[in-house]
Amino acid sequence: MTKHEIPGIVVGRLPIYLRAIQRMAQEGQRVTSSKELGERLGVSAAQIRKDLSQFGEFGKQGTGYNIKYLSEQLRRILNLNVVWDMAIIGAGDVGSALAHYSGFRDRGFQATMIFDNDSEKIGKKMGGLVVQDIANMIEVIRQAKVKVAMVATPADHAQEVTEQLVEAGVEAILNYAPIQISVPEGVRVEYIDPATHLQKMSYYLE
Amino acid sequence: MTKHEIPGIVVGRLPIYLRAIQRMAQEGQRVTSSKELGERLGVSAAQIRKDLSQFGEFGKQGTGYNIKYLSEQLRRILNLNVVWDMAIIGAGDVGSALAHYSGFRDRGFQATMIFDNDSEKIGKKMGGLVVQDIANMIEVIRQAKVKVAMVATPADHAQEVTEQLVEAGVEAILNYAPIQISVPEGVRVEYIDPATHLQKMSYYLE
Repeated sequence: MTKHEIPGIVVGRLPIYLRAIQRMAQEGQRVTSSKELGERLGVSAAQIRKDLSQFGEFGKQGTGYNIKYLSEQLRRILNLNVVWDMAIIGAGDVGSALAHYSGFRDRGFQATMIFDNDSEKIGKKMGGLVVQDIANMIEVIRQAKVKVAMVATPADHAQEVTEQLVEAGVEAILNYAPIQISVPEGVRVEYIDPATHLQKMSYYLE
Repeated sequence: MTKHEIPGIVVGRLPIYLRAIQRMAQEGQRVTSSKELGERLGVSAAQIRKDLSQFGEFGKQGTGYNIKYLSEQLRRILNLNVVWDMAIIGAGDVGSALAHYSGFRDRGFQATMIFDNDSEKIGKKMGGLVVQDIANMIEVIRQAKVKVAMVATPADHAQEVTEQLVEAGVEAILNYAPIQISVPEGVRVEYIDPATHLQKMSYYLE
């Protein structure tokens, strides 16, 4: 199967597996099984075996998975052998939190630039980055060949900013603005919207 | 069908539909169709009709959906006719951003308390909330009958904190710690982990 034939839902589970086995490694564990991993993640062992088998052979029947090896392989599959530079668009509360967030680096990403249209914010430091004028965004991103961006603008501006990011060559957008955005084929969008997760749970509350 | 027989994946799409039609309402629109909504969201009209039909009749063939009515109904189904109080656990970068985040209130939630174990932080103000000692968390949450919490602790503490939240009567947890947590039946967990979303996209980057 080629890269693009593997269902997105399967690809989406690899980072969860990677996170869990890296956690096991931190805890000093060296070997795991699909059964143990499944129990940790609340999924079936069969699903884990089936998902991983789409990408190759990572363990032997009966001996389980070598955690270091599986971790390296998952990182390779997910293109995490490099650290991806990211642009943050919007220097409000969410953008600021992203600029300060220290959890990206270990997992293959680092914010290297942040943009805003507010002259009060431009030039100020935020989590080690200097807020740049959004008017220069397309050029700056294009020159730096940044492929990953996080949109943290108000909903009203998210689509316009997205189009500029695509023009600048960005191929992966993590959208924090609470609105659906359209992108051309070949560009990927993922969404972070805590309120939708909360609303999904409030359905079950009495 | 009773509430719990409707698949979680269908329930999970309702907040997305609600967000989109509330956006349309803000833009001054009064009526929409499953076709238009589907185009906005990149899903099929048939899926929207099928999902909504599980909860009742919200539109008439040919005349579409009245946005105000559909919005009210979705809010009722998702238990958003009240504003749910929330506890934030962890007053680090993520907890602080959540305390400052203004996007919850309009969507049915408000952070009313924040806890940490760091004596440097306890007593300080954060986004209008005073950081409280985590040692008192179970009692404070129980007395206030808070049912919703956001866990923003380091991964190492997330499971322990979760168990305390469950003991305190919390039934819905939004977990920002990058680790899978276990909860007893009847308690729901949703996850926010931007790195897993980014890694899912880096798979496709060259």
